[in-house]
Amino acid sequence: MKQPSSSSEGLLGSLFSSRAVDAELSDDALLRAMLDAEAALALASAETNVVPAAAADEIEKACQHGDFEIAQLGVQAESAGNPAAPLSRALVERVSAAAKPWVHHGATSQDILDTALMLLAQRAGREIVASAAAAAASCAELAERHRHTVMLARTLGQPAVVTTFGLKAAGWLVALDTAGARLDVVLAQRLAVQLGGAAGTLGVFGAAGPEVLRCFAARLGLAEPVLPWHTDRQRVLDLAAALGALVAAAGKLALDVELLAQAEVGEVSEGGAAHGTSSAMPHKRNPIDAALVRSASYRAPGLVATLYGASQHEHERAAGAWHAEWQPLRELVSIAGGALSRTAQLLCNLDVHVERMFEDVDVTRGLVMAEQLAARLAPLVGRSAALDTVARCCDIAVSSGRALRDVALADDVVRTHLSAVEVDGALGPQRALQAVPALIDRALASRKLPAASAKSA
Amino acid sequence: MKQPSSSSEGLLGSLFSSRAVDAELSDDALLRAMLDAEAALALASAETNVVPAAAADEIEKACQHGDFEIAQLGVQAESAGNPAAPLSRALVERVSAAAKPWVHHGATSQDILDTALMLLAQRAGREIVASAAAAAASCAELAERHRHTVMLARTLGQPAVVTTFGLKAAGWLVALDTAGARLDVVLAQRLAVQLGGAAGTLGVFGAAGPEVLRCFAARLGLAEPVLPWHTDRQRVLDLAAALGALVAAAGKLALDVELLAQAEVGEVSEGGAAHGTSSAMPHKRNPIDAALVRSASYRAPGLVATLYGASQHEHERAAGAWHAEWQPLRELVSIAGGALSRTAQLLCNLDVHVERMFEDVDVTRGLVMAEQLAARLAPLVGRSAALDTVARCCDIAVSSGRALRDVALADDVVRTHLSAVEVDGALGPQRALQAVPALIDRALASRKLPAASAKSA
Amino acid sequence: MKQPSSSSEGLLGSLFSSRAVDAELSDDALLRAMLDAEAALALASAETNVVPAAAADEIEKACQHGDFEIAQLGVQAESAGNPAAPLSRALVERVSAAAKPWVHHGATSQDILDTALMLLAQRAGREIVASAAAAAASCAELAERHRHTVMLARTLGQPAVVTTFGLKAAGWLVALDTAGARLDVVLAQRLAVQLGGAAGTLGVFGAAGPEVLRCFAARLGLAEPVLPWHTDRQRVLDLAAALGALVAAAGKLALDVELLAQAEVGEVSEGGAAHGTSSAMPHKRNPIDAALVRSASYRAPGLVATLYGASQHEHERAAGAWHAEWQPLRELVSIAGGALSRTAQLLCNLDVHVERMFEDVDVTRGLVMAEQLAARLAPLVGRSAALDTVARCCDIAVSSGRALRDVALADDVVRTHLSAVEVDGALGPQRALQAVPALIDRALASRKLPAASAKSA
Amino acid sequence: MKQPSSSSEGLLGSLFSSRAVDAELSDDALLRAMLDAEAALALASAETNVVPAAAADEIEKACQHGDFEIAQLGVQAESAGNPAAPLSRALVERVSAAAKPWVHHGATSQDILDTALMLLAQRAGREIVASAAAAAASCAELAERHRHTVMLARTLGQPAVVTTFGLKAAGWLVALDTAGARLDVVLAQRLAVQLGGAAGTLGVFGAAGPEVLRCFAARLGLAEPVLPWHTDRQRVLDLAAALGALVAAAGKLALDVELLAQAEVGEVSEGGAAHGTSSAMPHKRNPIDAALVRSASYRAPGLVATLYGASQHEHERAAGAWHAEWQPLRELVSIAGGALSRTAQLLCNLDVHVERMFEDVDVTRGLVMAEQLAARLAPLVGRSAALDTVARCCDIAVSSGRALRDVALADDVVRTHLSAVEVDGALGPQRALQAVPALIDRALASRKLPAASAKSA
Repeated sequence: MKQPSSSSEGLLGSLFSSRAVDAELSDDALLRAMLDAEAALALASAETNVVPAAAADEIEKACQHGDFEIAQLGVQAESAGNPAAPLSRALVERVSAAAKPWVHHGATSQDILDTALMLLAQRAGREIVASAAAAAASCAELAERHRHTVMLARTLGQPAVVTTFGLKAAGWLVALDTAGARLDVVLAQRLAVQLGGAAGTLGVFGAAGPEVLRCFAARLGLAEPVLPWHTDRQRVLDLAAALGALVAAAGKLALDVELLAQAEVGEVSEGGAAHGTSSAMPHKRNPIDAALVRSASYRAPGLVATLYGASQHEHERAAGAWHAEWQPLRELVSIAGGALSRTAQLLCNLDVHVERMFEDVDVTRGLVMAEQLAARLAPLVGRSAALDTVARCCDIAVSSGRALRDVALADDVVRTHLSAVEVDGALGPQRALQAVPALIDRALASRKLPAASAKSA
Repeated sequence: MKQPSSSSEGLLGSLFSSRAVDAELSDDALLRAMLDAEAALALASAETNVVPAAAADEIEKACQHGDFEIAQLGVQAESAGNPAAPLSRALVERVSAAAKPWVHHGATSQDILDTALMLLAQRAGREIVASAAAAAASCAELAERHRHTVMLARTLGQPAVVTTFGLKAAGWLVALDTAGARLDVVLAQRLAVQLGGAAGTLGVFGAAGPEVLRCFAARLGLAEPVLPWHTDRQRVLDLAAALGALVAAAGKLALDVELLAQAEVGEVSEGGAAHGTSSAMPHKRNPIDAALVRSASYRAPGLVATLYGASQHEHERAAGAWHAEWQPLRELVSIAGGALSRTAQLLCNLDVHVERMFEDVDVTRGLVMAEQLAARLAPLVGRSAALDTVARCCDIAVSSGRALRDVALADDVVRTHLSAVEVDGALGPQRALQAVPALIDRALASRKLPAASAKSA
Repeated sequence: MKQPSSSSEGLLGSLFSSRAVDAELSDDALLRAMLDAEAALALASAETNVVPAAAADEIEKACQHGDFEIAQLGVQAESAGNPAAPLSRALVERVSAAAKPWVHHGATSQDILDTALMLLAQRAGREIVASAAAAAASCAELAERHRHTVMLARTLGQPAVVTTFGLKAAGWLVALDTAGARLDVVLAQRLAVQLGGAAGTLGVFGAAGPEVLRCFAARLGLAEPVLPWHTDRQRVLDLAAALGALVAAAGKLALDVELLAQAEVGEVSEGGAAHGTSSAMPHKRNPIDAALVRSASYRAPGLVATLYGASQHEHERAAGAWHAEWQPLRELVSIAGGALSRTAQLLCNLDVHVERMFEDVDVTRGLVMAEQLAARLAPLVGRSAALDTVARCCDIAVSSGRALRDVALADDVVRTHLSAVEVDGALGPQRALQAVPALIDRALASRKLPAASAKSA
Repeated sequence: MKQPSSSSEGLLGSLFSSRAVDAELSDDALLRAMLDAEAALALASAETNVVPAAAADEIEKACQHGDFEIAQLGVQAESAGNPAAPLSRALVERVSAAAKPWVHHGATSQDILDTALMLLAQRAGREIVASAAAAAASCAELAERHRHTVMLARTLGQPAVVTTFGLKAAGWLVALDTAGARLDVVLAQRLAVQLGGAAGTLGVFGAAGPEVLRCFAARLGLAEPVLPWHTDRQRVLDLAAALGALVAAAGKLALDVELLAQAEVGEVSEGGAAHGTSSAMPHKRNPIDAALVRSASYRAPGLVATLYGASQHEHERAAGAWHAEWQPLRELVSIAGGALSRTAQLLCNLDVHVERMFEDVDVTRGLVMAEQLAARLAPLVGRSAALDTVARCCDIAVSSGRALRDVALADDVVRTHLSAVEVDGALGPQRALQAVPALIDRALASRKLPAASAKSA
């Protein structure tokens, strides 16, 4: 159960993951990142005259070479409690006697493993941000295209008033863009190298410690921390929170799609070839992408909570809390990758059934415009009387199956105060939707994720 | 990230898992279990005259044969949203025209996948129960052996009174035994086959449905459910709760070991060859087993919550909530397996430093017996006066570094009411520990997990 | 935020709670239960000759009197870290000098508080079981009454095949009954008194310890634990798991109701006076009960996880983990109470729109019976050909808007092998629903919660 | 269980909360904030000529007056499903006929309740940030004062190398400062007004909608959202994540204190009058503040997960997910308030036992400097040989109880390459701690929370 393989070739295929993201999370990638960290450490130490340049070069070459056996390192990890310890021993074996003392010099296992996990998160995270940007770009396109596509707004599962599909898509956009941009910031600013040595003092480097730290960070393209953060896990929490929130934004969108795709609603459907067919029921078209995105949204909160729950690391290195982070962190990144790439795909293939949206509004016989009629009446008869009047008309419309317009025009209070034209004006969507284009424009203008960084799903 | 491989050969070795348990959770095992389910369905249907016997036999043989490619099924899973659909198609390809219609007859993908996951849980769960029994057996042995080994009881991290290490081990025993036995009951009674067809009506079987269900369950050794439970996930919750509670029991034990193994306490240490050595600090002996067990105890609650959170399955089959169960369920089983096998190993190798336990009691200079002295005084001077007197003596003992006995014998109130012999009696552990043997006997007598089922760790 | 008041008179009314349950969870109730525990301890100690009978009687009377000020105890709790310590001091003040030494004799604060919380859970839990039984009884009635009410079965949000509303209600019944009965068992068997003294050794009682424990449990109607369980929290986990699972069962039901109540589906609606009206939209009828039950199902998993996460209590008494249990436990009981009483109310008032159920089946033009048609054809043309044929017919039916029956009768393959009567037989619900009455009977026969214990909602 | 009272006068006192924070979270405060929202809405609408100025003034006055009964509103909330609906009706009753139509004009219940909760969070959050700043200021002081106070660094619960208490405090500082500053940013930038009307279209305001939104936000001092965020809960997630991370930072500090305060370690203790005394054990001094802070750190992750889990709000307003936020949000704010004010108090009263720190280093007989000795030897004999040599010396030192210095000076390899002075230099803490002052300076220089904003705890 524990080691992610380097490909997405298992029985559950890539149901829950993205191949591009998972490639950055595999054991191969983790080993690569640990070697990158060891190499950068040697070079940074040479740069700051802590380690002889020749030794550092030799160590870097050994790191590049890559003749390390994952299975063997895994076996050795068991007695050390982590894979960084056997890796540094394996590196020592691969360099000359002169270089041996300088392998892993000044570092502790956590320095290498934390740094490697941050590299993984950064590399995989960029793919996720790109998927979020692609999904957001699709939302922006839908917002633009369906700016005026009138549809029911539904609250507590019931038709409420009218909105446009463009505004709904703009809502998805803002959430995805906000969450994606937040993740982007975390990747750039909060993912830092780890370097502190046995207990966070940078002791072995002497006074050169802070300078080694600076060079180490510069070489790896990660942030330079103020202090070693062996037991200060705020960075991990920032990453977890950002990933969880992005999955949540995707999950909301998927939930809307799933509900709109219900046969009885039928306002959108998932496109794509041979999509979501059922073995037992040949006529069905299942919203598979939405279901799988939602599956991620069920899983992310527990992973976020696990990382928050394991964030109190005692003393200078934790016994258990640290170890508890590794797999949940990779898993959270993985399912975020799966969720966002599926969301981008879902949006690319989304079929929007504009006519069904109109029909579903019509079916309410004007009841969803009741609020507008009450608002129109209120200044004339008082809000309470207006609400009472409209409620009475609605009750009659509901029980008789007549249109609200017809009932209203037959109502004494209404016809005393409003002409037929005024009633029609109140019951039409125009006024109710007057602010919608401006709202959509605000959403489009507020985008923080560069449309350019969007890859195809 | 998503597919567990069939072995524990990754970079994180078997840090967090047990090879025996993970062998039952791999993709190979999942495929095997799905095929077992398809075969049992065919045979049960033949037994109830729903499917021709020859067809069922042929289907069973095809299931046995095993020439299925996991990677290919994984790719096909993607459009179906699960691996059971392509598997049934692959089975159809492997049987004669006469048998083809009877493959997967009357079933839906969820029938096969839920049943397979229950088989996995049962097979892996038995290994976990065996590890729990082994750990409990070690605890029982420690309880017996250290029945009279006096040590400090600590509350809120502070020395409180005395207890014995045997009673502490008896506490571990009761928790592990209770949790292990609960899991055993869940495995035997709550893990059920799933069979309902497209929507839980057993529709395709006609009136024979319930009988097919009965035979299907009997063949697989799983419970027969009252109804198909496609969207009633109480069984999954029972399994999750039992696994989580067992990990919690192991985690408490590991926490105690970690704290007792602190150099400053030094009352136990993890044994085992070359155990827990540190690359940077050659003198250290880290409590690696305890740390890894604790890592599981940090992860289990989030997985339990995920399964509870994904337990409201809408209508007759859920879009997302069901899919969200698969990986967390396997992962929870996996880390429970790792935690329990490590706990068993930890206990096998545990070094108990009896003399340090005595020393740590002595270091408190009798202060931990203050409660006994107060209790001895209370009937003579009133409880308040007794507490005041003892508190005064304790303060003096603390500030002066003298033994409580000496301070007490110099105290006016004490010496007015108690002789030196009585003070010594009050300050000795005998009275305080009078009930301990009986408590340990109760714990040993209450064991529910058969000692016999315990495998070696 | 922290202290529940004794009534449900806050701004959020009883949206999330049940008055009957919350009355058992209030600060008044907690104080009452702590006093019950102190009184029972004194009497049990007298019964076992540890404490003079007169002192015990006096203590009991002081406990009965009830002139304790919650606010003052609360202030004093702050330095002690819990309210049991100041309560025992307050009791000492209320008894004669002769009785003073025997107040709280042999106990520690955790003994009193854990026991009190178990009493609260038991008393409140019985109300919850009663609500679950009432809800289950309503489900049983619906299962009986709508045994043959044909409706769509929906999977992944799409119409799949047909079922009956009775079978759906039977599914709700089995889940509620299973979960309610599990809670009932926990209340009766797993809620135990806590008694161990300072460190779980029953030290102050001497050899009488186990006998005091037995009497203490008998007096309070709680189980007698094998050992003091100060740091073995399996009982708390059992309670949490049972409550969480019951909320999950209610949440699934509420989710179904919410989805069936959508205007576009319209198959059920919440009844009750002036129910779920909206300030802004007078025509709306919101499924308020379902929404509030669902709100509990969103909250319960986090509370379950909190209790699992806080279950590793170090040494003989935990610093923090124990304190972390108190409020989440009360809150979980409270929202379970609210969820179950609302579920019972929802079911009492549920309006079932049988005709809409039929219409929604009709609207699918026979497509949901496609599985039956394929099953009917499979033995004649092979399963693959049957599925292909039916898929072709479905595609035509979908694109043309014609009934599947008509398309099928015009299909060459179909009419070669089946007569019109046979097609009608295959497309009618009778065969598909043949096992349903038996399934409903199984559900009704399996009930474990006594119908008699059901109170009115 | 559900309604927080306006004071902290319950049985659990203010164990888990801060009076100042809870005052901002009470039902009184919530009602006040809802009225503030209604008043601001009326005035903003008048400012934008949507509502007559006189009506708005009248509404504002009615909001100020405050003759609203919480209990009555609570009862009425039950049928509406929230307290904002009955509040707007109560407001209507309190204004003239001319103003009645303009009460709650254009708003929906969620507009008022979400805005009110954001106001609560902002007001309470500022208190929490102030407590975090106070705690951080104490950490800064400790970092300064104990810059050179040598103590053991401990990893996996074992002595590793040396550090200084100042660096430990600097680590606490960075975490608290980072988390506090993040919360401060969320309060200022992410807490926004909610205003969208029935379905987020601002429909009733016509084209003036965005302008009303702007004025509404300006009046309340909350951010102006790009769009109404009825079903985009990213803001709630940001708040939850920030609060959870701050509690985590405090929890790590409390865990360290608890471990350092163990009698066997004894390097710090909680000060303060009559602190943490035990009823049963008069000699004990319990780390009560640390325990209560840790209790919050056990609870926060579940609440964070609940808010993440309830963040997928369907369509234009959610049925259940929204309702699920209210109490967990208040509770998370409340326990964060309690945790941070206690942390500030704990740090104010913290007694640091410098001599015990030195003694605990000494007790290791130089073993914790083994890393330095190995580093000193490595360039001379090769890293492997150096590690082997030092490990051999350590083993001898451990088994013989001799000082590492003495063993090393007697070792052939060591004395071949190093003089006694060089050995002493390697085994002294000076070199190991060379970078520490610079690290502390970095931590002090990186502070983002203004020291000035720190209130006394």
